[in-house]
Amino acid sequence: MKKFINDIDNMLRESISGMVEAHPDLVRAEFEPTFVARATSPASKKVALLSGGGSGHEPLHAGFVGQGMLDAVCPGQVFTSPTPDQMLAAAHAVNMDQGVLFIVKNYSGDSMNFQIASEMLDIENATVLVNDDVSVENSTHTTGRRGVAGTVIVEKMVGAGAEQGMNLAQCKALGDRVNAATASMGVAFTSCTVPAAGRPTFDIGPDEMEIGVGIHGEPGRRRERIQPAEVIVDELLSAILKDLAPAKGREVLLHVNGFGGTPLMELYLLHHCASKQLKSLGLKPVRSLVGNYTTALEMAGGSLTVTLLDEELIALWDAPVHTAALRW
Amino acid sequence: MKKFINDIDNMLRESISGMVEAHPDLVRAEFEPTFVARATSPASKKVALLSGGGSGHEPLHAGFVGQGMLDAVCPGQVFTSPTPDQMLAAAHAVNMDQGVLFIVKNYSGDSMNFQIASEMLDIENATVLVNDDVSVENSTHTTGRRGVAGTVIVEKMVGAGAEQGMNLAQCKALGDRVNAATASMGVAFTSCTVPAAGRPTFDIGPDEMEIGVGIHGEPGRRRERIQPAEVIVDELLSAILKDLAPAKGREVLLHVNGFGGTPLMELYLLHHCASKQLKSLGLKPVRSLVGNYTTALEMAGGSLTVTLLDEELIALWDAPVHTAALRW
Repeated sequence: MKKFINDIDNMLRESISGMVEAHPDLVRAEFEPTFVARATSPASKKVALLSGGGSGHEPLHAGFVGQGMLDAVCPGQVFTSPTPDQMLAAAHAVNMDQGVLFIVKNYSGDSMNFQIASEMLDIENATVLVNDDVSVENSTHTTGRRGVAGTVIVEKMVGAGAEQGMNLAQCKALGDRVNAATASMGVAFTSCTVPAAGRPTFDIGPDEMEIGVGIHGEPGRRRERIQPAEVIVDELLSAILKDLAPAKGREVLLHVNGFGGTPLMELYLLHHCASKQLKSLGLKPVRSLVGNYTTALEMAGGSLTVTLLDEELIALWDAPVHTAALRW
Repeated sequence: MKKFINDIDNMLRESISGMVEAHPDLVRAEFEPTFVARATSPASKKVALLSGGGSGHEPLHAGFVGQGMLDAVCPGQVFTSPTPDQMLAAAHAVNMDQGVLFIVKNYSGDSMNFQIASEMLDIENATVLVNDDVSVENSTHTTGRRGVAGTVIVEKMVGAGAEQGMNLAQCKALGDRVNAATASMGVAFTSCTVPAAGRPTFDIGPDEMEIGVGIHGEPGRRRERIQPAEVIVDELLSAILKDLAPAKGREVLLHVNGFGGTPLMELYLLHHCASKQLKSLGLKPVRSLVGNYTTALEMAGGSLTVTLLDEELIALWDAPVHTAALRW
């Protein structure tokens, strides 16, 4: 295993410390229990948005803490759910008496722990469960579909809504609506190595790819010989659009997400292929996000996410955001 | 070779097209010859800043085209210098009658081709040659030191200076000054695969690292067994600080750059180690940049860059920037 590590048990803490030291204007961290929160409170009271999940997907989620997006996140160990005590401490730290919204990727561990926190929390709260991955129903770590790169879209749009004064019920309804309008699917060329395991999560042949892979290296739909980018994009987009069933002429957001080990040059090439195919199907990709946002450590590969837009969602997407990983 | 590619000969064009389609508000591209330029002209006339070099280092350089940074860049094929005709076409496209400054990483091909362009160009021009890599004097592709991740710092600060109305001589002097105040060194855990070659640039053992590696996988100082992050950081920083010889109490910018295949989680951990070591040496890391900015395709590893700051350089660093890869 080749990683920049001193001590596996201390890796998460050292990494979070480095993030806070790099962005002292944006985030602060607590370690007993662990959470990352905005360095300064919002200008006016708002619904507090909390997310979290296993580490190893950076910049998701701590990279999205800041103005216009999240208020706090609870990182677990690599690919391991955070615990309810983290969520309770984070919720109390950022509570502004307008309620707390948990944004949770659908994995068994995460959804169980966030549910316990939701029940224990003495502040009005609600939960948006993100399940945008159309590749498989149920899987190694989930009942139902997995939550993947679409989470960033949900967090951005609900973040803008909360900042603009939406109440808890409105934020919850918006999150559910964005999740329903969002679908994703990915492909992996290589595996990734969880530090505590010390060896690749799965084996894959030198000319193979895993279609529909999860962001922890979970199996997808099938293993097959690697194909040209256009063929891969066609398969991913077909599955996504079958799920979303958009009307012709619909405006969409196209998110090309890298899993960590694929160069940006290739991600932009994927964007070109996907944008061309969307247009040829009569859809209008009017907003884009390209880069490594929901990663699986150093896995090579990436995913496509499409969100069906309308005027409200475009305005929420375009609203100012000031975080370590998204800023405009 | 596992990459998102349709046709190797068309890869660069498809990738640039995808970038322009993802950021139509920021950049436009021409293909005969190839360059990427700002989508819209600056509000007032200024020195035009041009950079460029082989592709495969994204987001360097096209990701830094926009307000507060570069006016145009000339991408060559992967790890291959662009040609003078690209530079001449780009210079004419963004010329605002205030002169053209070329910012060039020190590699034999790049410096030769930019020099030819400089001599042929019928517009007043000057060149800043970036050579921040302290690991080796001369190398596979250079006479003298290589230009690596410090290029981003030079482009950002000179970009701010040009935007604020510095003339050509002032921009040139500023670029030389930032370059002299900047030093970098990197380490690789894996090789990378140039698409046209189809196999890894170099071989490296499962427990080895290349200390002082270049951003094309060129050899550095030596090959050795992988070490804990703190030991690696100590070696890189020692070489950097030996070169810069800062006085105690000096404020510095710390840039942790990923080569493409190393997770952000590890880059933040490196930042924590480097920041701690700088402080223990009496230096003050008051500005930071952490992420994959000067990459070597999918190479695992990263580099540290330190720039000695003063009031003027801090103000130039903090000045607004609006590009695909840097924005504040």
